[in-house]
Amino acid sequence: MKAKRTAINPTREQDYPGWYQEVIKAADLAEHALVRGCMVIKPWGCALWENIQAELDKKIKATGHQNFYFPMFIPLSLMAKEAEHVDGFAKECAIVTHHRLEEDEEKGLVPAGKLEEPLVIRPTSEVVIGEAFSRWINSYRDLPLLGNQWANVVRWEMRTRLFLRTSEFLWQEGHTAHAAKDEAIQEAEKMLEVYRQLSEDFLAVPVILGEKTIHEKFPGADTTYCLESMMQDKKALQAGTSHFLGQNFSKAFNIKYLSKEGNEEYTWTTSWGVSTRLIGGLIMTHSDDNGLVLPPKIAPIQIVIIPLIHKAEDEEEILEFCRDLETKLKTKNYNNQNIRVEIDLKEKTPGEKTWGWVKKGVPIRVQVGKKELEKSSVYIGRRDLEPNEKSCVDKQDFIDQAETMLAEIQNNLFTKAQKFTDDNSFTADSREEFFKFFAPKAEKTGFVSAYWIGDDETEKELKKDLKVTARCIPLKSKEKLGKCIFTGKDNARLTVFARAY
Amino acid sequence: MKAKRTAINPTREQDYPGWYQEVIKAADLAEHALVRGCMVIKPWGCALWENIQAELDKKIKATGHQNFYFPMFIPLSLMAKEAEHVDGFAKECAIVTHHRLEEDEEKGLVPAGKLEEPLVIRPTSEVVIGEAFSRWINSYRDLPLLGNQWANVVRWEMRTRLFLRTSEFLWQEGHTAHAAKDEAIQEAEKMLEVYRQLSEDFLAVPVILGEKTIHEKFPGADTTYCLESMMQDKKALQAGTSHFLGQNFSKAFNIKYLSKEGNEEYTWTTSWGVSTRLIGGLIMTHSDDNGLVLPPKIAPIQIVIIPLIHKAEDEEEILEFCRDLETKLKTKNYNNQNIRVEIDLKEKTPGEKTWGWVKKGVPIRVQVGKKELEKSSVYIGRRDLEPNEKSCVDKQDFIDQAETMLAEIQNNLFTKAQKFTDDNSFTADSREEFFKFFAPKAEKTGFVSAYWIGDDETEKELKKDLKVTARCIPLKSKEKLGKCIFTGKDNARLTVFARAY
Repeated sequence: MKAKRTAINPTREQDYPGWYQEVIKAADLAEHALVRGCMVIKPWGCALWENIQAELDKKIKATGHQNFYFPMFIPLSLMAKEAEHVDGFAKECAIVTHHRLEEDEEKGLVPAGKLEEPLVIRPTSEVVIGEAFSRWINSYRDLPLLGNQWANVVRWEMRTRLFLRTSEFLWQEGHTAHAAKDEAIQEAEKMLEVYRQLSEDFLAVPVILGEKTIHEKFPGADTTYCLESMMQDKKALQAGTSHFLGQNFSKAFNIKYLSKEGNEEYTWTTSWGVSTRLIGGLIMTHSDDNGLVLPPKIAPIQIVIIPLIHKAEDEEEILEFCRDLETKLKTKNYNNQNIRVEIDLKEKTPGEKTWGWVKKGVPIRVQVGKKELEKSSVYIGRRDLEPNEKSCVDKQDFIDQAETMLAEIQNNLFTKAQKFTDDNSFTADSREEFFKFFAPKAEKTGFVSAYWIGDDETEKELKKDLKVTARCIPLKSKEKLGKCIFTGKDNARLTVFARAY
Repeated sequence: MKAKRTAINPTREQDYPGWYQEVIKAADLAEHALVRGCMVIKPWGCALWENIQAELDKKIKATGHQNFYFPMFIPLSLMAKEAEHVDGFAKECAIVTHHRLEEDEEKGLVPAGKLEEPLVIRPTSEVVIGEAFSRWINSYRDLPLLGNQWANVVRWEMRTRLFLRTSEFLWQEGHTAHAAKDEAIQEAEKMLEVYRQLSEDFLAVPVILGEKTIHEKFPGADTTYCLESMMQDKKALQAGTSHFLGQNFSKAFNIKYLSKEGNEEYTWTTSWGVSTRLIGGLIMTHSDDNGLVLPPKIAPIQIVIIPLIHKAEDEEEILEFCRDLETKLKTKNYNNQNIRVEIDLKEKTPGEKTWGWVKKGVPIRVQVGKKELEKSSVYIGRRDLEPNEKSCVDKQDFIDQAETMLAEIQNNLFTKAQKFTDDNSFTADSREEFFKFFAPKAEKTGFVSAYWIGDDETEKELKKDLKVTARCIPLKSKEKLGKCIFTGKDNARLTVFARAY
């Protein structure tokens, strides 16, 4: 059988990481910046982030949170206040030490104006926000305090990949303080559910909700909740986290309140965040060997109209037909917004245009030539189907069905990804079975559930020998206890393991 | 006459800078951060920035620009490539020199992992974007390249004031490249006009559009266009700038294109930006001795409903009346959006609530008590009128008129500010007259227009002796030439002078 020609080379099968880079390049989403580990987010990638941001911001506000903005600089002494936290981030902090440039006769331009205290660029903002909360909160009337910020953060990374791991990235970080412990736990779980909705309903990326094991939790958290998704190489991607911070930061930063009964009490705090990493997960979940595939809800353009003009004399008539189609489609609603439509008028051949939009992942491509004009029809290509599965549809029918078709594509992508996750999720009842799932070239691999007691030794062994980590203890099987397949101990928790990004 | 009691002390007359700080504090807009020169933008201030951002982003996209996002780090060697540019910013650059923290036995936590090349945190992004443009642009088909980013930038400032001048601030920066010089100049002027619309139509802040003199232009620009507004202390605030960069950055970064005729040519570039400083201008233009005054278009809450409950038995009925009012008002449109309404249910007295909202600048306050309920009326306070000028209006009439009333308030605020600017703008026909306008305790002062040749000596003298700078050469009188009142030379341009922020 002849190999299929694909727009992206290498294909997923040939070289998955290489394919990922090429999908990004072909869709013109982002590129590596001059500074090692940083990226330039190009307009098509930026539009994806803006759509995520708009959707999530609405959800964050609907759950009672307000946005604020804290400075990106953290005084070193403040950073040091929560011991576990600073330990966790010390190796990846970018540090500002000077505040001007000076001309040196020999060396040229050099840093000058040494700061009295070095400043850490926020890797996350618990400490600056904790300090502010300690001043803002006085009585139980000030609680709960529910805040969020959209910001850039820096974590100096040695091995970086566009969207998945970059030294600077964009994210939102929510920070809340509560009078009651239970309320804080509920808050952390509520925001995890908000992230699930964003991921599954908007990005069409299925997730497993769970709790991180002690080895994988956030530095300074009591409990870290997470969302894990399966990529097409069967590896896991942590798509977001929500932390119940207990009273760790409250005690480090003295975040106290006067209770109704007149007692001084420490608050219970949470923090939660998702980042531009979501775009990496989106790409790896849906895209194929012809490039990016976008679920309609996030697509910056949902329907692109490509005029096919072979003779100059037909041009005006075809363009008028296209413009009429565009106008009518734009009055239609999908997901409570007008459908986003564009006519491609660039100086390119129809083939170049079509493949350009395939690679950019636009859900529906509409071609209109002389033939379509005469029959008042349109020629439709759907990004969730194969490029050659095109169909001719009556123009008015298409306008009437556009919303349904977009909903169908959104749904198809989610169902397909869910099936892939299900098909590649297994249970290991013994250590031997477990190792078989993660053997080189194992036929069956992916997410493997097993009872585990959570001991350091097994954790290190799996990481070293198999490159496998405990992804989470799924919330839906949180109560299940069994015998640890590694140590034989009782009361082990059902844990999901995988190789991960 | 007894002094009026005011919610803000000091008043504008007593101590204008002190008043400004107090207005910000009373409205809970922002506070100084731990790191000197930085600020924390609190929810009410953040909502103002989000509203500005939404409005301006729409306008930027409507004029054909796309958003991208560049890293905040600039390699030192890249920063040095445009000589005038680096000279202009060298004194205010925050510099990252290390990428981790290490525990030192004596000193505690210290910066470690010295970078091979120091990184400048962007004070603005011409250089990183210029470098990318040189790779992105190949032929005339790639032009014009029209981009924008929303980002934080850092300019290390010695004297900082909330919103007006902070070391880190939020802004947007547009960057474009064009084949033709004229097109680039038109672009810079077009975006200045976009800023004018934002300032005058949305923020109700009147502006003068002009060109900066050579002393005040952006480092690296051929021409800097600007918007200048008069604050209530008659000082000027530069609210935004738009730069025609000529071929300075194109030559420094080799941004070339192949023309239709097959020649290699340098592009012409522009850049333009406005920042959180706009909020400072908004505060100082409209606010009064009772606190913040917000034009309805930017107000996060346009109408607040305050229930007046004196007897517990009336509570349910009054609240139902309020909820019904809220629902009906929310279906009404103002400025193409649903009116933003909130019922204040906090545990506070009606007086505390009312003054709280006065200080936060909400355009319309509605009070509803037993009396109003019985007459099916509402008691209205408008922020553009004195606090005691309240009126009783039929509920349905108020619902019907709400949009008109908001439009009227928006308009009143602009008209009042425009009148203030006009009343305090003068022309000086001689050096003597000029100095009189800027004498200590001058009766008439503000914006002073005068013909000036633009010489260094006068520039230094005015700055040193009067603390006055040339704000701009207004576009509307750009062609006017006359005799310089300082040097007696001919062909001097009509320039606006003022003390400035």
